[in-house]
Amino acid sequence: MGRGTRLLVLNPNTTATMTRAIAVAARAVAQAGTTVVARNPEAGPASIEGPRDQALCTPHVLVEVARGEREGCDATVIACFDDPGVEAARRIATGPVIGIAEAAMRTAAVIASRFAIVTTVAPAVPGIEELVARYGATRTCVAVRAADVPVLALERPSAATYRRIRDSAADALRADRADAIILGCAGMAGLAPRLARELEVPVIEGVAAAVKLAETLVALGLATSKRGSYATRAPKGTRDAAPSRQRAKSLRAG
Amino acid sequence: MGRGTRLLVLNPNTTATMTRAIAVAARAVAQAGTTVVARNPEAGPASIEGPRDQALCTPHVLVEVARGEREGCDATVIACFDDPGVEAARRIATGPVIGIAEAAMRTAAVIASRFAIVTTVAPAVPGIEELVARYGATRTCVAVRAADVPVLALERPSAATYRRIRDSAADALRADRADAIILGCAGMAGLAPRLARELEVPVIEGVAAAVKLAETLVALGLATSKRGSYATRAPKGTRDAAPSRQRAKSLRAG
Amino acid sequence: MGRGTRLLVLNPNTTATMTRAIAVAARAVAQAGTTVVARNPEAGPASIEGPRDQALCTPHVLVEVARGEREGCDATVIACFDDPGVEAARRIATGPVIGIAEAAMRTAAVIASRFAIVTTVAPAVPGIEELVARYGATRTCVAVRAADVPVLALERPSAATYRRIRDSAADALRADRADAIILGCAGMAGLAPRLARELEVPVIEGVAAAVKLAETLVALGLATSKRGSYATRAPKGTRDAAPSRQRAKSLRAG
Amino acid sequence: MGRGTRLLVLNPNTTATMTRAIAVAARAVAQAGTTVVARNPEAGPASIEGPRDQALCTPHVLVEVARGEREGCDATVIACFDDPGVEAARRIATGPVIGIAEAAMRTAAVIASRFAIVTTVAPAVPGIEELVARYGATRTCVAVRAADVPVLALERPSAATYRRIRDSAADALRADRADAIILGCAGMAGLAPRLARELEVPVIEGVAAAVKLAETLVALGLATSKRGSYATRAPKGTRDAAPSRQRAKSLRAG
Amino acid sequence: MGRGTRLLVLNPNTTATMTRAIAVAARAVAQAGTTVVARNPEAGPASIEGPRDQALCTPHVLVEVARGEREGCDATVIACFDDPGVEAARRIATGPVIGIAEAAMRTAAVIASRFAIVTTVAPAVPGIEELVARYGATRTCVAVRAADVPVLALERPSAATYRRIRDSAADALRADRADAIILGCAGMAGLAPRLARELEVPVIEGVAAAVKLAETLVALGLATSKRGSYATRAPKGTRDAAPSRQRAKSLRAG
Amino acid sequence: MGRGTRLLVLNPNTTATMTRAIAVAARAVAQAGTTVVARNPEAGPASIEGPRDQALCTPHVLVEVARGEREGCDATVIACFDDPGVEAARRIATGPVIGIAEAAMRTAAVIASRFAIVTTVAPAVPGIEELVARYGATRTCVAVRAADVPVLALERPSAATYRRIRDSAADALRADRADAIILGCAGMAGLAPRLARELEVPVIEGVAAAVKLAETLVALGLATSKRGSYATRAPKGTRDAAPSRQRAKSLRAG
Repeated sequence: MGRGTRLLVLNPNTTATMTRAIAVAARAVAQAGTTVVARNPEAGPASIEGPRDQALCTPHVLVEVARGEREGCDATVIACFDDPGVEAARRIATGPVIGIAEAAMRTAAVIASRFAIVTTVAPAVPGIEELVARYGATRTCVAVRAADVPVLALERPSAATYRRIRDSAADALRADRADAIILGCAGMAGLAPRLARELEVPVIEGVAAAVKLAETLVALGLATSKRGSYATRAPKGTRDAAPSRQRAKSLRAG
Repeated sequence: MGRGTRLLVLNPNTTATMTRAIAVAARAVAQAGTTVVARNPEAGPASIEGPRDQALCTPHVLVEVARGEREGCDATVIACFDDPGVEAARRIATGPVIGIAEAAMRTAAVIASRFAIVTTVAPAVPGIEELVARYGATRTCVAVRAADVPVLALERPSAATYRRIRDSAADALRADRADAIILGCAGMAGLAPRLARELEVPVIEGVAAAVKLAETLVALGLATSKRGSYATRAPKGTRDAAPSRQRAKSLRAG
Repeated sequence: MGRGTRLLVLNPNTTATMTRAIAVAARAVAQAGTTVVARNPEAGPASIEGPRDQALCTPHVLVEVARGEREGCDATVIACFDDPGVEAARRIATGPVIGIAEAAMRTAAVIASRFAIVTTVAPAVPGIEELVARYGATRTCVAVRAADVPVLALERPSAATYRRIRDSAADALRADRADAIILGCAGMAGLAPRLARELEVPVIEGVAAAVKLAETLVALGLATSKRGSYATRAPKGTRDAAPSRQRAKSLRAG
Repeated sequence: MGRGTRLLVLNPNTTATMTRAIAVAARAVAQAGTTVVARNPEAGPASIEGPRDQALCTPHVLVEVARGEREGCDATVIACFDDPGVEAARRIATGPVIGIAEAAMRTAAVIASRFAIVTTVAPAVPGIEELVARYGATRTCVAVRAADVPVLALERPSAATYRRIRDSAADALRADRADAIILGCAGMAGLAPRLARELEVPVIEGVAAAVKLAETLVALGLATSKRGSYATRAPKGTRDAAPSRQRAKSLRAG
Repeated sequence: MGRGTRLLVLNPNTTATMTRAIAVAARAVAQAGTTVVARNPEAGPASIEGPRDQALCTPHVLVEVARGEREGCDATVIACFDDPGVEAARRIATGPVIGIAEAAMRTAAVIASRFAIVTTVAPAVPGIEELVARYGATRTCVAVRAADVPVLALERPSAATYRRIRDSAADALRADRADAIILGCAGMAGLAPRLARELEVPVIEGVAAAVKLAETLVALGLATSKRGSYATRAPKGTRDAAPSRQRAKSLRAG
Repeated sequence: MGRGTRLLVLNPNTTATMTRAIAVAARAVAQAGTTVVARNPEAGPASIEGPRDQALCTPHVLVEVARGEREGCDATVIACFDDPGVEAARRIATGPVIGIAEAAMRTAAVIASRFAIVTTVAPAVPGIEELVARYGATRTCVAVRAADVPVLALERPSAATYRRIRDSAADALRADRADAIILGCAGMAGLAPRLARELEVPVIEGVAAAVKLAETLVALGLATSKRGSYATRAPKGTRDAAPSRQRAKSLRAG
């Protein structure tokens, strides 16, 4: 492993404080030889809430993935529980690309028979449910619950914020007969240990799960298959990769 | 219906000749009172082939959808068989938004018990298969076949190009026991009548199906629900909706 | 379109007042060039409630479909939310045959991410749930609820009848997180506008949806495929198409 | 069991020779105490091939089921592999009603891990596939194959007819990795023993399976639940249970 | 049937009183010509609660199945609602092997449109839910409910025990809209008649259902297919079929 | 991590040479701080081929898991592609328990859109297909193919053995459009690098994948949930955990 592993951990929104919190969570579990390169795009939505934000952040995510690869990163983690741009990034990157929702669900499935996902707000639920189906977890994931906590409230979670998340998780254990909890937002990373202690069940957090999965893939010499739907295509002429600043403004107003 | 219906028919790639062909197909089936506004984004990929192109075109699609709404369009058709940006556009628009793959599949399902989709090239197949699942057509859609015809070859299809598509459709009728064919690319719109005549089965083309579905929704006063996951969110601060021209260039090189 | 489209709208039960109400709903949305031929069979059950009524009405429905075709109808709508006889009628007719449940569900799916169906009474629920599965809407249709309103009460709905339907729909929006409502009985057609206004979500009504879908198919020159399971078979010798009046009486007594 | 069990075995078509063959198959496996009452309706299609025949025979099937009950039959077997009218008959009868396709599949599933169904002709396949799904056998039933043998050819099967069925079954064992065969037509009942001997796998025949299942239900005192969707409804006014002879004629011509 | 049918009815746990109760239930429904050989293994868990007990009892079950075959039994019933060892036993036995959960579900499905299973305690639920999926009953089985009754309490059920089971069943009828009840534990066999009388729905009990299914298979000359995954393999060298008494003790301590 | 991680890698059959090969594969990928304790049970089948062998080995596997825990192992890998005893072991162990099939499939799913499993012989296929369904990989796993290579031939694979496996994998890439290969037998571990080089797709091997997943879980402080179906139950009286040597002999003869 000589020079060690370089891991790009990408916060797809532009909120730098969130990027720093994600970096802390990633470094807390990374092996000695792993360098975590934590970044966010220069432009795009300040938080990812729903399909529109996902659509708007994805071109920027792809720019950062391409940059990470040029700079020698061995693998990429996309640190947002909607896994935005993961499918597209797998076509661009030569190293593996891992979304935190996928990593969390695949990890939870080997230690729980029924897990629940606790996320921030109700509008985030349908997108996560679609990921549950995509990752084949329909039977194992027994609920996706919203704690009614705005994403930004997670930067410095108050006692009330923590309580809501814990209550939502406790509801899932009781009413949905869940036996493990997945935290459904990158911003919740810091809460896992306390929740696990108080609820007495495994609490899986996606940033940590994705970092370890990335290290595993690098260690085993595995990367995204380039034979099938993730094959890298030859670049075609594109006029301009994204709307100009001015046109984007009109979108915000719309 | 007073002033009549204004229908935005959006080609998500930047190839203007394709936009013109789509406009012809749309106007051929539109009612007397419908005005077809056919457009493509100013920037973005020249054709949509796979998740990366879909990701790159979507912010531009959203800009055009917002513009269409400001200009008074009553409904939007997104004229690419990958239905790129449809989910996100439904959050932005107040009028209905219709992808041509969804329109084609929902129309085929009422006249066929087993339909097959014939698309351009093999790498397009997985994305279409995912749409088949999303639209609940897993049991009715018995095959997605690639005719091995590049998208650009469809602008002025040679005899050989036509033959490949017809042979692929004929294979589906025989080997997959399909009883109807969906043309899986907006560029194939012009071929439907001849194929239907020669194969003696219904041949469904998405641009036509979507235009009629849009007219139906407008006539019935129906539009995307704004209560659940398609609710329009209040705009948040975004630094810039997309990568600058320079950064986009680096992506092309990657 | 020269002579315009002739559309057979068939009420499968023998209650003439219901046929008239369905005709009103159909004509309210039909295009200028469309002639609505509204009919019910001369014989059969007075209302369709469950598999037995469906079985008993179907031979009569087929007689009317064949008659409609002989008289030059271009398409047939079967105006009962159980879609009775639709599969069989597709084998007899050369024009398209559309059930109102199928039309309503396919229309709802492009404007809602989670719809609920509100029908009359509890025994109607299992049959509708089977249609939900047949039309691939298992994931999108989040509930089928009975408003506890007898079919006949719908002819002249009292305030209490309306309230029950509205409350049932409101329950679906809240408890099932539905974002659109389908009215699950042809007799509810007249209630859609008021419900949509009061509930502030799209309310889809099957007669209207089916009439527009029929017009679309005729406009696009599409009809049921005759290649596969809907192929019209050569007539075989049958002794008598149905039980005599006397034997039928014994069935009613049983 | 005092007076013994009376079992109505109903051939839903009007071909008396087929009824006699079915009676032979039923009596061959019935217990000492069971009386087999084999009948066919007086009117309706001469054979059941597809949804139209199913629709046309069902009212007559219901008349016979009601008559059987009045005459004291304890259970009813509907001896056609499309299970026509079974769902409706369960609402009319107080004793259990069993279709031969359902009985065959439920029996096969406890002795085979992958079974195949060999039926007569290709147009019968889609209907049987729908039954496979309804009975939850999608994973266990690995193929529905047509032997290309007309139903009438089964009355006195030639050597060539037998060979086609055997070859079709052998193909299923080899190509579909089936480990048991279900004969998918009541007319094939007599062929099971020879096929089982030559193919060296279990060959399940529906008439026999249904007769034994009916005896089991009677012995255990079990009958169709009358609480849910099979509840017997109070009779409503119906004008006439079926088309008159003259109107039925017009249907045949159509 | 000459000498009559010998049926091995195997209680997979070592509690002899339970074996006797199962024998009573089996003999109550067996035909005149059937001899019920009721047994339990000499060693293994005293009751089957969860995967560990299932794993521990299975080698003993296989020993008894092999012994039953050597002694001329024609078929085997495994009388525990977890169906432990059924799949493995089918590879050893030449006669059919039937689990009571599978027999109960396949019987219930022909007389009910929605059944519920009432079992003993909550930890038994997940295993039964897995069987529901394996037997293709996901749509028909609407609930698996635990009555909170310890298995041993079923040997001599008190009034309170009976009431809990009845209340649990009544809840399923009301809240889950079930129309029939399956008793999800061999120990509940004796309660079926009273429950059926009081709840007025069919109550299916697995030991009875399995005995009749076994008799049916023997009567029809059907046994487990030996062609596919149930093929009997040639014995290989095994050092010792199970842990010694001493090592087993260490497992209990663990 | 102080003393480092102790990992029990359990070969569930009694063939010591296979245990040594598995140990080599495990140590090749283990981190510096991980101690691999490779073992096989003292008794049980010499290889695991089908449900009977799985049933017979499981009690011995449980004994070894309990022993491993007493000796301070932090996690257990069960190194057989049938994942025998994994569900039961999760109830006994306090540390995580990982089957190599599950680890391989969950790892493959993040780098491939369509993977195929290449296993030894045809009778192994159905069991693996059941695991594919259990782990939610039905859509992603496009084929389970047998290379027709006996398990024992893998101890020292000849050129012909290697060729068969490679050809089987190449068939899956071409005919099933797979884009990655999972090796479906612990004995194939050594072949992965050469296959990956020659086929130019990712080749995933379960022992390696499971070792890394075990290290990840230990590093993250995650273990099997003890709240739901994996709760450790209080030990009950068992007479004897397994058949005696003498009775086992009779089973081998059977």
